[in-house]
Amino acid sequence: MTALKNDRFLRALAGEPVDMTPVWMMRQAGRYLPEYRATRKLAGDFMSLCRNAELACEVTMQPLRRYAMDAAILFSDILTIPDAMGQGLYFTEGEGPRFRKVVRSAQDVEQLPELDTAKDLSYVTDAVSVIRRELNGSVPLIGFSGSPWTLATYMIEGSGSKDFRNAKAFMFNEPEAMHQLLDKLARAVTNYLNAQIAAGAQAVQIFDTWGGVLSTSAYREFSLAYMQKIVAGLTKESEGRKVPVILFTKNGGLWLEEIAASGCDCVGLDWTIEIGRARALIGAKTSLQGNMDPTILYSTPKSIRAEVARILKDYGPGAGHVFNLGHGITPDVDPANVAVFVESVHELSQQYHQG
Amino acid sequence: MTALKNDRFLRALAGEPVDMTPVWMMRQAGRYLPEYRATRKLAGDFMSLCRNAELACEVTMQPLRRYAMDAAILFSDILTIPDAMGQGLYFTEGEGPRFRKVVRSAQDVEQLPELDTAKDLSYVTDAVSVIRRELNGSVPLIGFSGSPWTLATYMIEGSGSKDFRNAKAFMFNEPEAMHQLLDKLARAVTNYLNAQIAAGAQAVQIFDTWGGVLSTSAYREFSLAYMQKIVAGLTKESEGRKVPVILFTKNGGLWLEEIAASGCDCVGLDWTIEIGRARALIGAKTSLQGNMDPTILYSTPKSIRAEVARILKDYGPGAGHVFNLGHGITPDVDPANVAVFVESVHELSQQYHQG
Repeated sequence: MTALKNDRFLRALAGEPVDMTPVWMMRQAGRYLPEYRATRKLAGDFMSLCRNAELACEVTMQPLRRYAMDAAILFSDILTIPDAMGQGLYFTEGEGPRFRKVVRSAQDVEQLPELDTAKDLSYVTDAVSVIRRELNGSVPLIGFSGSPWTLATYMIEGSGSKDFRNAKAFMFNEPEAMHQLLDKLARAVTNYLNAQIAAGAQAVQIFDTWGGVLSTSAYREFSLAYMQKIVAGLTKESEGRKVPVILFTKNGGLWLEEIAASGCDCVGLDWTIEIGRARALIGAKTSLQGNMDPTILYSTPKSIRAEVARILKDYGPGAGHVFNLGHGITPDVDPANVAVFVESVHELSQQYHQG
Repeated sequence: MTALKNDRFLRALAGEPVDMTPVWMMRQAGRYLPEYRATRKLAGDFMSLCRNAELACEVTMQPLRRYAMDAAILFSDILTIPDAMGQGLYFTEGEGPRFRKVVRSAQDVEQLPELDTAKDLSYVTDAVSVIRRELNGSVPLIGFSGSPWTLATYMIEGSGSKDFRNAKAFMFNEPEAMHQLLDKLARAVTNYLNAQIAAGAQAVQIFDTWGGVLSTSAYREFSLAYMQKIVAGLTKESEGRKVPVILFTKNGGLWLEEIAASGCDCVGLDWTIEIGRARALIGAKTSLQGNMDPTILYSTPKSIRAEVARILKDYGPGAGHVFNLGHGITPDVDPANVAVFVESVHELSQQYHQG
């Protein structure tokens, strides 16, 4: 493999000195880019785009051509695992992901197959290989998966949800079946992320998009415990370098100490928690990723720069911070505002990395 | 006025000893009750129900006939103030509240009238008087309003929102106009709640439903600061008794100390924060209300009892806790499960109030 030309992202994750704060954006390969929309149209539907390694590589590269991002993230979906388990993932215009089959009983859980991710999700590992070749050492590649709890919510609800009533009722009424489901998913996610690492992913992120809708006790038992299992089972090193794990629970600000104690290398923050407060709590233990409100990208260059400056100042001097949005970029942001965002991070952060 | 027969709710808010933990439910007069649906049908649309004091009284009383609730809450909507300002509130089936006019510029803010709540919202104070007469001292009556930030989000978006992009862009790009809007709303809310108190409300709650979508710094500046202003301007005593103020920010668990320092008497909790942790943080300063996940009401009597027991144990012995859901009850809960909930709180809490 080619040596990494820009390893700012990996250095920051390890808490090592950098010249400026690295930056990337969740969902950076996405609908806000006209070239993404063109490629997606070419592919047909969203899953056909995910399943075509060359096109998945193309959309992964698109934001890197426009912006000085310090990392690439595999273009895929968080729900590939339940899809490979036979749940039938599809997307409806403006309504997000849906499943043709739902899980509603212990028997449904029993019948879900154990995945052979190397075979069942080879389209993902193929994409990882193709992207690594194309990146040619320019920046590191991030692999990812949804968390077991987050995957389970979609599998049980059959779609997104406002109140997750079915997933929660299943959890309250059939805790054993729920644990069996989460255990199965945790095994699949572990294998899946390890397959991505074997194919070339240099860091991995677990997206716990819906952990924050749980009570603290339910979060511990039904979400965090399974992410902890995954972290423990991941390949620690690849190509002679540590493979860091980023754990991101949206609305997880109340549980930072416990998340940091999971064994992960970095805690992803949404925008509701102050990064300075998060650093004081867990900065000695893990690095931090985040935490700008994505809606600021709807505002003006002046407001974007001011918010970047505020967050950098709040984090303060020294390494250990990967700048990012607190959630994925939204579809109708002006791509010019993303340039302002990335440039502001690089420019304004240098003063915090002087010694 | 008749002496209060059951003042458990007011005593708990004041941190005074009680025989058992008082309980009520946010949105307890609501669609999960068949008798509510019948009355609403009779009234026509939702706002006609709010505007008819006799019918508003009827639906306020309905849950009290079924369950041993320790408080009644005025039946109304959180958006009556912007409606009275001429924004044209209406409701669409399954899509929640909408406004015919939206606020999108400094000029729009300028043109909003200062309310004379006694006149412009007399239908609300009339309802308060009628309900107090009907309650006849059985339990206290809670008045309420939306918070300035929460009202502003609906006025700017024109409806509910997934990401509040317009409200946030307005805040980022025109902070002065935003502050002017919030200031106008804070004055209106203060007058409105004082009018409810004058008409007979014995406690008031401010619903900051959407404060939790803000960053910490934005929450402080654009939501909490205005609730603080309101609290400072409220009538402190009525009918020879303190009128306690409950401040509820959904997803506000990260900001409990600051909320408690606002001058409010009680902090409302959603279900993501542990009530024991909240008590350790702010229990010496304010009482607490909450904090059961409303979706538990979709489960079984056994699960509901177990969750009530868990929360009571987490709060521990002594006064200062008003049991409630962490958010409003949802429309298709089985009314029989609400009975289990209320009975469990009363029965299981007695052991914590022995001395």
